[in-house]
Amino acid sequence: MEPGKELMRIAVDAMGGDYAPGIVVEGVAQALYDYPDCEFTLVGHTGKIGFYLQKYGIADHPRLKLHHAETAVEMSDPSAISLRGKKNSSITEGARIMKAGLVEGLVSPGHTGALVAATKVLNRALPGVDRPALGASLPHRYGRFILVDAGANTDCKPGNLVQFALMGEIYASFYLKKERPSIGLLSVGGEDGKGNSLTKSVFKALSNMPINFVGNVEGNSAFEGTCDVMIADGFSGNVMLKTSEGLARLSVNWLKNAIKKNALRLTGALLAKNAFVELKAMGDADEIGGAPLLGINGVCIIGHGSSSPKAVRNAIRTARDAIRFRMNERICQRLIECHATTEELEDLF
Amino acid sequence: MEPGKELMRIAVDAMGGDYAPGIVVEGVAQALYDYPDCEFTLVGHTGKIGFYLQKYGIADHPRLKLHHAETAVEMSDPSAISLRGKKNSSITEGARIMKAGLVEGLVSPGHTGALVAATKVLNRALPGVDRPALGASLPHRYGRFILVDAGANTDCKPGNLVQFALMGEIYASFYLKKERPSIGLLSVGGEDGKGNSLTKSVFKALSNMPINFVGNVEGNSAFEGTCDVMIADGFSGNVMLKTSEGLARLSVNWLKNAIKKNALRLTGALLAKNAFVELKAMGDADEIGGAPLLGINGVCIIGHGSSSPKAVRNAIRTARDAIRFRMNERICQRLIECHATTEELEDLF
Repeated sequence: MEPGKELMRIAVDAMGGDYAPGIVVEGVAQALYDYPDCEFTLVGHTGKIGFYLQKYGIADHPRLKLHHAETAVEMSDPSAISLRGKKNSSITEGARIMKAGLVEGLVSPGHTGALVAATKVLNRALPGVDRPALGASLPHRYGRFILVDAGANTDCKPGNLVQFALMGEIYASFYLKKERPSIGLLSVGGEDGKGNSLTKSVFKALSNMPINFVGNVEGNSAFEGTCDVMIADGFSGNVMLKTSEGLARLSVNWLKNAIKKNALRLTGALLAKNAFVELKAMGDADEIGGAPLLGINGVCIIGHGSSSPKAVRNAIRTARDAIRFRMNERICQRLIECHATTEELEDLF
Repeated sequence: MEPGKELMRIAVDAMGGDYAPGIVVEGVAQALYDYPDCEFTLVGHTGKIGFYLQKYGIADHPRLKLHHAETAVEMSDPSAISLRGKKNSSITEGARIMKAGLVEGLVSPGHTGALVAATKVLNRALPGVDRPALGASLPHRYGRFILVDAGANTDCKPGNLVQFALMGEIYASFYLKKERPSIGLLSVGGEDGKGNSLTKSVFKALSNMPINFVGNVEGNSAFEGTCDVMIADGFSGNVMLKTSEGLARLSVNWLKNAIKKNALRLTGALLAKNAFVELKAMGDADEIGGAPLLGINGVCIIGHGSSSPKAVRNAIRTARDAIRFRMNERICQRLIECHATTEELEDLF
């Protein structure tokens, strides 16, 4: 790293996800190597982490700190547990040290709901933002698009979606490396007048903003690459995300079965094996690097529960990029520029 | 057919869909052969249909009638056109002869919105039903499930979803041949308390009904076969339907490209060719036989715009099954049985 520059400080929830803490520690070990401009704080039960620190040879790494957390949120726990019941969980402790300014970012491959609850209460929304939103990344024919909100808010007001558009625009500008990301509104039917009462209000508001708004986009054409950022309330957004996951998994299984049906086809399958791997990866979290909770005061990246070490490393990369890009500062600026702070959008809330 | 039994009378919109009227006439020709217990009325511009009647050898078929319609709704037309502007379209004329009792069912591979608009106004909802809903069929690992509402109502009240559940149950009982179809509620997170304000009300109401309610179901687990009938507001339901279509198409394309990448893989692809055809068919309308508009006074089946003759034939089969099964009578009965008529569900509307 360049001399004189301060290290970026990122907390990583060591107890999050299905294969914690081993997988997470392995991912952090990769990140220590790949990102020399970062310092990491592993948050979790130090007694349980110790073995893996030795195993991956990072027990005494100068850029690694530990922060003890007595408990951990299980994937089966309810979302509110990070605030009630397991107040000393690794998720809650991570949010706490970010609130205290000890780190600028928090990465967790754990329980999305619990992480959203903890950071919303402890770290709070950025000034001008009403509701933080999850920015997931989905594949399309020519690359990827960002879906905001992918599930943080089940009931939304029009003003929330307007802010999602601007937060998604800023995120896409560095994640997708697009100068002027195109913004679509998830709706039914491409016609302007179509949609439900929520999207009709949002459509009007977005049409008057200085953004690259491409109008209503249907769930099917999103996969053809119609927009860089897809805006939705968190309920429909989550339906889109989960439907994609489910159908991708079904497609792979279905194709496998179809090919197994006879020996000739089996030969074909063996030859086409790598294609399977790629199809699987399409819906996979590994390459994506986690979904940011946009609009939180502090960088918060949520990884997939079944993350691999590589996925953990990539989620860390996303956190690092967000810090380097000063994502949150830019979001606040953009909301002011577009007169889209909660106060200014009063009639849409 | 059995002697003494009356023919079932079904109108078919000859001008609907991308390849009308040729494809539609060909589908009707197949249906005339396959379903000797049905009489068909082709609705469309008689001058334009004539050639195809000759071509498929059904010009003088004793079970075929013609009903002239001067215009046709184009796929690019707005939904309201069937009531304003093109009042003499094949869709509007089809709804009109069903209203007059000349036919019991109407099949159209045309414009969904226009068909919904025309039948809602001309044929009206069944007694006790507030809003008719589209029942689409989607694949899961072990078969298919029905999604209601797949897009007819963008804004819904809790009572609408309760009625969707009962209408879906009746439809699934003959379409999927299930005695006691399981009913799931499309939501975010499997926990009972999860969802938006709409689904939370619906969850409570469905829990108290004498149905096989399996609770909240997420978009991904629906493809694992969690329920026979999936209930959703028409906005989220349409998002689910369109997302599935889009991702299925993307998967096929993506896999093709991955396999083409090198010659060895290409050999594999050639051998696995039939598997492709089957994967494609998964998201395909051909086998499904169209989606019923449930709760309309009259059987109304909507086919895919890009229907093949086989798809038209299968949509006709669905209409025939619905008539034979006395679907609408059973829906009305079921609403009364469950105290779920619009009047009785007053506090949910």
